[in-house]
Amino acid sequence: MRIGDKHYRTIWMDDDPGVIRVIDQRKLPFEFEVLELRSLDDACFAIKDMVVRGAPLIGVTAAFGLYLAGLNSDPLSWCDEVKEAGEQLIATRPTAVNLKYAVDLGLGNLNCAGSREGMIDRLFHLAMQLAEKEVERSRRIGEHGLALIRECYEKKKAAVNILTHCNAGWLACVDYGTATAPIYRAHEEGIPVHVWVDETRPRNQGARLTAYELGEHGVAHTVIVDNAGGHLMQNGQVDMVIVGSDRTTRAGDVANKIGTYLKALAARDNGIPFYVALPTSTIDRELMHGSEIEIENREAGEVSHMQGWDEKEEESSRIRVGPAGSGVANPGFDVTPARLVSGLITEKGVCQATEEEIMKLFEV
Amino acid sequence: MRIGDKHYRTIWMDDDPGVIRVIDQRKLPFEFEVLELRSLDDACFAIKDMVVRGAPLIGVTAAFGLYLAGLNSDPLSWCDEVKEAGEQLIATRPTAVNLKYAVDLGLGNLNCAGSREGMIDRLFHLAMQLAEKEVERSRRIGEHGLALIRECYEKKKAAVNILTHCNAGWLACVDYGTATAPIYRAHEEGIPVHVWVDETRPRNQGARLTAYELGEHGVAHTVIVDNAGGHLMQNGQVDMVIVGSDRTTRAGDVANKIGTYLKALAARDNGIPFYVALPTSTIDRELMHGSEIEIENREAGEVSHMQGWDEKEEESSRIRVGPAGSGVANPGFDVTPARLVSGLITEKGVCQATEEEIMKLFEV
Repeated sequence: MRIGDKHYRTIWMDDDPGVIRVIDQRKLPFEFEVLELRSLDDACFAIKDMVVRGAPLIGVTAAFGLYLAGLNSDPLSWCDEVKEAGEQLIATRPTAVNLKYAVDLGLGNLNCAGSREGMIDRLFHLAMQLAEKEVERSRRIGEHGLALIRECYEKKKAAVNILTHCNAGWLACVDYGTATAPIYRAHEEGIPVHVWVDETRPRNQGARLTAYELGEHGVAHTVIVDNAGGHLMQNGQVDMVIVGSDRTTRAGDVANKIGTYLKALAARDNGIPFYVALPTSTIDRELMHGSEIEIENREAGEVSHMQGWDEKEEESSRIRVGPAGSGVANPGFDVTPARLVSGLITEKGVCQATEEEIMKLFEV
Repeated sequence: MRIGDKHYRTIWMDDDPGVIRVIDQRKLPFEFEVLELRSLDDACFAIKDMVVRGAPLIGVTAAFGLYLAGLNSDPLSWCDEVKEAGEQLIATRPTAVNLKYAVDLGLGNLNCAGSREGMIDRLFHLAMQLAEKEVERSRRIGEHGLALIRECYEKKKAAVNILTHCNAGWLACVDYGTATAPIYRAHEEGIPVHVWVDETRPRNQGARLTAYELGEHGVAHTVIVDNAGGHLMQNGQVDMVIVGSDRTTRAGDVANKIGTYLKALAARDNGIPFYVALPTSTIDRELMHGSEIEIENREAGEVSHMQGWDEKEEESSRIRVGPAGSGVANPGFDVTPARLVSGLITEKGVCQATEEEIMKLFEV
């Protein structure tokens, strides 16, 4: 997608095969900086410190991290070094499924009896393939979601208003995103779209990242506080909701960023379709119901404080929101029950949020 | 209510009859300061600059402003001066109904043929009476709401978890508050209560004011982002919701701070009672349905920026949340339809949110 006049992915290689480049997402939207990853340590740092974030992007970064470990390895001990690198990468964010998948893929293809050059070549191609696969997956989600937006546009014959929560955008992936993929495709097709961007407290990924990427790509959008969506829906100002998903159960319950459930309720109350865009890899077939998903309680500082841009000092700044003595609770996700979900937009097509329909996705 | 070791009201007079004192609410919870109002101009400034806020408190401040105008008036032109003062006060916040009521009450009692001393005396007593009336009204709302909390406690035999949105607390009134009044009364009665305080973006009146006043009075509470309430309700961590109301229609639709509607939906979806605490003076009998209420769009800066406390610099600070180029929408209120309201807690008793029940309140 575009930033300024240039097309970017979140992770790429220029001419130098020893340098992987990523957008430093810690500083967005206030500063745009590209960080160079030249070693395994650089890659681990980027994942751990959230220079890169979003499950797909973390996986691809880990794959390139393994490649960098191989590239910089000692000719006498390269096999052990790469294995150790895998452990180090997994330890950066132990709960990230895509990260583990990427590392397992790399190590599974490791031939310690072969040549070091062969290993480097293989790890490089695995990382590149993984990146391409992510892009292709996002593109297909976009294609399937596009049909829904187009249908709405043909009925309405005016700009389609789409509300989204948090950042399930291209910045969380390699390109296109998940929830944003249909929006970017519609924009490419010349269908007028306007996006209501939920700020998404506590970490403000909506205001910080979704608004930024939509703005840079030239998609019309408006930032709102998380409280506002219900009112806009009551007022006929929202045509559909599209959100992402961190984990979806076999029965179609959707775990996503805290607050998603409230928007699903409001959409239902106002007869507005509520779609969840997700790669089928995030469907957990071992889990039947959302109540089985353990919700992570995150650190209090995210709620009691807020990070932003001090325009006077021209620097990032952190302020306390309330009284120092008040306790804080910070559940990171909530579960939207399948009954509130109008459809799942996956790379394999759109389906209803029911066990029967979801399992059909895996039959092909 | 208590702040530190002392009992306060939001507005009061000490020994000097020429000085009205108010808590400077612009600085809470980061700094506690008392501001002295010595003139009509001081009172106008306090209302306009939101040193005082909340409909009941604005009304009482206006009444004292009229008194100060009279007190400082010229013996030869006092009657014209007081009349002009009324206009000046109403102009500070033209849409505030309680303000207009207070001024009309004062001017309606003005006898230009009488003595200046008599006028001062009358304006003083009218202001004092209005303050007492507000306190008594809050106390009664508390008494009626207390019964609901007690009932819940007797069933549950454990601390009652109450979620509230925004600040309908004593800081918006003179004492007790509206939504908080039942909570303070329960606390006084030794019923264990715990309050989930919605941060309430964009202006954070929950985190800034409700958390502060509950904390200072010693009521257990936890601050959450506005996104979290639905999840807590799904998890059985909320026993009831109590919010305030800016305006309630004849049919029981409730206009209140943006985001209230989302909490009402979640309460309904989880079988949790959703109460609205309000003085009957905020019931607009001219309006039947919430759709007739015009919702104020407030300034963009409230959403794009956030005010808080810079702990390093030990000063109030303002940060930008998202990209400078993104547009913002900021509807200030939403309407919760009567069908989602379990009951209205008024100074005259608790009733259902139906036209029939509401009109009965006015029969007595």
